Amino acid sequence: MKCTIDIKREGNSVMAYLPFNPRIEFGIPKGSIYVICTIGGVEFKSKLMSKGNKKYCIFFSKQLLKNLGLNGEEHFNVPLDIVLENIAISEAVEPKMLENDTIRVIRERSSVRSFIDKKVSHMVLDTILYSGLCAPSATNKRPFHFVVTQNREKMLHIMEGNSHYARMLTTAAACIIVCGDKIVQGIPEWLMEDCSAATQNMLLAIHSLGLGGVWCGVKQGSDFYKSIVNEFGLSCHIRPISLIALGYTDEDSPQRNRFEPSKLHYEAW
Amino acid sequence: MKCTIDIKREGNSVMAYLPFNPRIEFGIPKGSIYVICTIGGVEFKSKLMSKGNKKYCIFFSKQLLKNLGLNGEEHFNVPLDIVLENIAISEAVEPKMLENDTIRVIRERSSVRSFIDKKVSHMVLDTILYSGLCAPSATNKRPFHFVVTQNREKMLHIMEGNSHYARMLTTAAACIIVCGDKIVQGIPEWLMEDCSAATQNMLLAIHSLGLGGVWCGVKQGSDFYKSIVNEFGLSCHIRPISLIALGYTDEDSPQRNRFEPSKLHYEAW
Repeated sequence: MKCTIDIKREGNSVMAYLPFNPRIEFGIPKGSIYVICTIGGVEFKSKLMSKGNKKYCIFFSKQLLKNLGLNGEEHFNVPLDIVLENIAISEAVEPKMLENDTIRVIRERSSVRSFIDKKVSHMVLDTILYSGLCAPSATNKRPFHFVVTQNREKMLHIMEGNSHYARMLTTAAACIIVCGDKIVQGIPEWLMEDCSAATQNMLLAIHSLGLGGVWCGVKQGSDFYKSIVNEFGLSCHIRPISLIALGYTDEDSPQRNRFEPSKLHYEAW
Repeated sequence: MKCTIDIKREGNSVMAYLPFNPRIEFGIPKGSIYVICTIGGVEFKSKLMSKGNKKYCIFFSKQLLKNLGLNGEEHFNVPLDIVLENIAISEAVEPKMLENDTIRVIRERSSVRSFIDKKVSHMVLDTILYSGLCAPSATNKRPFHFVVTQNREKMLHIMEGNSHYARMLTTAAACIIVCGDKIVQGIPEWLMEDCSAATQNMLLAIHSLGLGGVWCGVKQGSDFYKSIVNEFGLSCHIRPISLIALGYTDEDSPQRNRFEPSKLHYEAW
């Protein structure tokens, strides 16, 4: 279909809102929407991003703007030709795969955000924490620390900093905050990577033990970050990076096929 | 023991080299060295960091400098009292833990950097890549892409950017570069976390299938980063974040106990 868009700067991004609701226009009630766009004869692929309120937008990288011959940053009433691209995950075929218990846990695990009223034993918690400590780290510096609480009041306190995304803390049996020591690992990107590997180890351990858990990101400097630092008295060289809420669940959340051939690039992009 | 140190700024850090070799002085031939230091009556704990060439140093955070009453940044001939702290990992007791196949894989996996001459089948590679695609991501944006090569020439090309740390590419059967799409996930720390979770999933899958692998960090803007971008023709909105070298191995690398009680903090730091 054809329409016109305004290419504008918003924060650090250059983007354009679509003047229609693509879910209705393209008949995609849920899931990702991939499109092929054409501007001034130049074709490019894009994933539509939701901005809430049924507003969807396209992001433009610097390279894309250059390819489109749009040198300045803001352009109004740009004619756009947009069609649906048929690469939705749900249509992908699951490949022939090997199976073992670990692959099954990786494949079946999904985020659990609602928990039943059942405590987690010390041995279960130790097993989960030990799994985190087994994560690899850049040059084996092991900069991670885990702050653990099973105290509802503390969980509700830190939730105040992120009441929407951390609302699972109202029912979680325990909460593990994965922190990184900025002195031990001075490169911020590696500190985040090491702590993320530890987080993922723990999430897999949680699922393998029959519990459920969810990863909640802690953006540096956010209210959520500050509420965690304050609640647990973290030194300024200790950076909370992620939070895991966990517990037993009666939620049944079967995983769908997540094989996406469009994300795999053999020998070249 | 007593000595004097010079507290200096080096890059973004404030640090001091030790005027002696702590491995010899403290009789710790390998592993981490934890110490308790005293400067001007103020005691603090530290992990000694190796700078190569048998040089070891202590890092000082802003908070620590403040606690020590050292307001300026550089201080010469500072008297230091330093003793070994007895919290080395090797002395920690392994806790009572639950066991299953996934926990065993997490516990046993270690980095493998030398590989035998044996190809990896399509089905094994698909299983590993699918495991990566199963990683959780912030608000389910799934910004990861995997670039895969089994071409030795390409691997040797990209190794030129990081000949020391990426030397396992001389024997690896395959290499997976985990990339993040900066347009799909605009928050850099979450992009890194999502890609790290995918990386860790693949490393665990690799070990569970009887192969070996190692995570090699790709620092943004480094020669290694540039050589990967050039070799595979990545767009400027695609950021290579980590590289996994994998293959079959005849290396026997039993894991040691990695339980470290000093990294676990219950209810408060």
